Amino acid sequence: MSNPNNAATSIASVSETNRSRIMNHLYRNGVSSRAQIAKALGLTPAAITKITARLIDAGVVKETGDMEGIKNRRSIGLALDSDAFHVIGVKFARSLVQIGVFDLSGKPLAFREMPKVTEDTIDATIESIRRTISDLLAEDEAIVAVGMAVPGPYLKDLGRTAVVSSMQGWRRVNFPEEFGSAFRVPVFVEQDARAGALAQYLFDPGNASDNLAYYLIGEGIGLGIIEQGRIIDGSRGVATEIGHVSIDLDGRPCDCGNVGCLERYCAAPAIHEMVVGAGDLIENASSLTHAQACRALFAKANGGDERARGIVRAAARYLAFGCVTIINMFNPERIIIGDIGADAGPLLLDEIQRVVDRHVIPELNEATTISLSELPSDAALGGAAAVAIVQFLEHPSMFFDLG
Amino acid sequence: MSNPNNAATSIASVSETNRSRIMNHLYRNGVSSRAQIAKALGLTPAAITKITARLIDAGVVKETGDMEGIKNRRSIGLALDSDAFHVIGVKFARSLVQIGVFDLSGKPLAFREMPKVTEDTIDATIESIRRTISDLLAEDEAIVAVGMAVPGPYLKDLGRTAVVSSMQGWRRVNFPEEFGSAFRVPVFVEQDARAGALAQYLFDPGNASDNLAYYLIGEGIGLGIIEQGRIIDGSRGVATEIGHVSIDLDGRPCDCGNVGCLERYCAAPAIHEMVVGAGDLIENASSLTHAQACRALFAKANGGDERARGIVRAAARYLAFGCVTIINMFNPERIIIGDIGADAGPLLLDEIQRVVDRHVIPELNEATTISLSELPSDAALGGAAAVAIVQFLEHPSMFFDLG
Repeated sequence: MSNPNNAATSIASVSETNRSRIMNHLYRNGVSSRAQIAKALGLTPAAITKITARLIDAGVVKETGDMEGIKNRRSIGLALDSDAFHVIGVKFARSLVQIGVFDLSGKPLAFREMPKVTEDTIDATIESIRRTISDLLAEDEAIVAVGMAVPGPYLKDLGRTAVVSSMQGWRRVNFPEEFGSAFRVPVFVEQDARAGALAQYLFDPGNASDNLAYYLIGEGIGLGIIEQGRIIDGSRGVATEIGHVSIDLDGRPCDCGNVGCLERYCAAPAIHEMVVGAGDLIENASSLTHAQACRALFAKANGGDERARGIVRAAARYLAFGCVTIINMFNPERIIIGDIGADAGPLLLDEIQRVVDRHVIPELNEATTISLSELPSDAALGGAAAVAIVQFLEHPSMFFDLG
Repeated sequence: MSNPNNAATSIASVSETNRSRIMNHLYRNGVSSRAQIAKALGLTPAAITKITARLIDAGVVKETGDMEGIKNRRSIGLALDSDAFHVIGVKFARSLVQIGVFDLSGKPLAFREMPKVTEDTIDATIESIRRTISDLLAEDEAIVAVGMAVPGPYLKDLGRTAVVSSMQGWRRVNFPEEFGSAFRVPVFVEQDARAGALAQYLFDPGNASDNLAYYLIGEGIGLGIIEQGRIIDGSRGVATEIGHVSIDLDGRPCDCGNVGCLERYCAAPAIHEMVVGAGDLIENASSLTHAQACRALFAKANGGDERARGIVRAAARYLAFGCVTIINMFNPERIIIGDIGADAGPLLLDEIQRVVDRHVIPELNEATTISLSELPSDAALGGAAAVAIVQFLEHPSMFFDLG
């Protein structure tokens, strides 16, 4: 996990940059001719020919035959061979660890779920994750990297999460130390909402935006921002922690030290609390997990129950304030609501939009659409894979031999 | 103001990128040998020799003689000739327009202040600004660009500011249309706090950070973020509008449509209101301008007056919530408080730090220092110049002939 952006790395950095630009272009635009790539990236045909020849030799790029409607010497289509390289994604939540294998397009190829984790079984779980990854690596030689998604705030420079109520037991785990050199492939770790943003950016065929926000409504409230095609990281890799932005300076205290933190009002535990407070609304509400309680609430609300709808609206108002802050702070083209929140359906979305419409400057509001994630529900796990895929596209020479 | 990042521009984009990287390196690191530049940027000595030869011909770079302690064929120092190219900066506030000429290092060379602007004199002011700029351009052939700083939210794509109470009269002015093609040099417009962030980044000799926040406490509350050396813009160029982030979802209504907006509590008009509310604290407080009232308050507080100190502390608490949000959202290494707020001195800063220490996750808090701007008080005008200088460094071929 050395940093290939380091200035001293090598004089090969310009070629590496151009390789990466070509791979990213093919990833986002699909089949393209050499001439199209040259034009789009402002590179000479000679440079394109040279670089693509190497990428074809390495098996990353394949020729797809004549492109429809184009008949000349440059008409052969090039495409990234999405199936030639695979990555492993690992998603950590408080009590749940999921592992999947994906191809470069985000298509799931294999899936493993670890047994439920408690404070006492974290060490055993780490061992078990290591074994599972090793087994997957042994079975599939095409795997070139592991991506991990962990709840924020994740301190990239220290390799561990900061104080968070939702992952106390995991807090003493140093992810790069535990996993960084355990395998034949490199391991990359990212905060979960940022991983989710990458998944939307890479895998959602409907996404054409370079400026998007992934708003994770789960056990906590998370945020990942892609600004002009780049994740916003901050100096220690702990930026975009919207869960700990205050919406009320005289509000509820939070474990982080702040008061009125957004996630104290509308993350799954807070919604669960409202459900329990509503007495007989959901049977045995207090014995459900937070996710179960939320989904039961959403089902009841979508079935027309007025009390349930009232709770969803209350949560939506808080979530909308989060959107207003996201819009004012990041001015994204899209806000995509993901995780448990995405299961609430149009009722939640419409109420959020109603509040946002009232609270945002019209010119900013009209520039931002808010939607629910349309990726399958394992998008968060796909996000972990996306963390690895981004590295593959940015720093190709780390992953295959370029002769 | 064409966009040289446009993919179709030319196949010269790689050389342009390398030229820009070399100019930025010299700007930030001062005198460097060709070998040092080659090593730092990962370019071949041959490429450096070729590119620097052109930059020397164009008069942008000069040789400075043998570098101390180095005696070999690569020992000649290179430096950006900061005085060879000048820019004009224009700062717009509600009633005040200032114009200055600067060299590339931010050194002021000339200064003009327009007469006080009212709603009725905006058209005349625009005409007068045009004339002043034309005169300055006629007097100084070294001027290559004009930078303008305007209060946010500034809609870059539309060329005008969005609804803001502090600049209603200017709202109908389209800056690029009024000024964009009026001169022999290009004009660049940026929101004022972002311009301030660029000034800190470029001109503060004490700054070594690529991740900084400029927190403008003036007639409004503004924010400019530099993240890994790049300004955060958003899709329409309206990001980082912290003045309209809510700190109280049941709070004071704002012209923007939101409630509890930060600037309703601690921008100069809100501080002025607290001063007026304190009765005889400051003589004739209600007839002062907001800036005058704030400065009179700061003087009294720093002189030990307890009532004045109480108001400064109240403002500091609100401002601190802004800092807590900045840290959680952007995780910068530095927050630099500028504009009127920078005049309050240590009393304000210490109180902000005290509140921040209580409200921010320790690992994030220790990663961020908060300070008052140390640039001279015309930093905001310098920021306007910085807007132009950044363009000069990023897109050199727009500004001089490269043969």
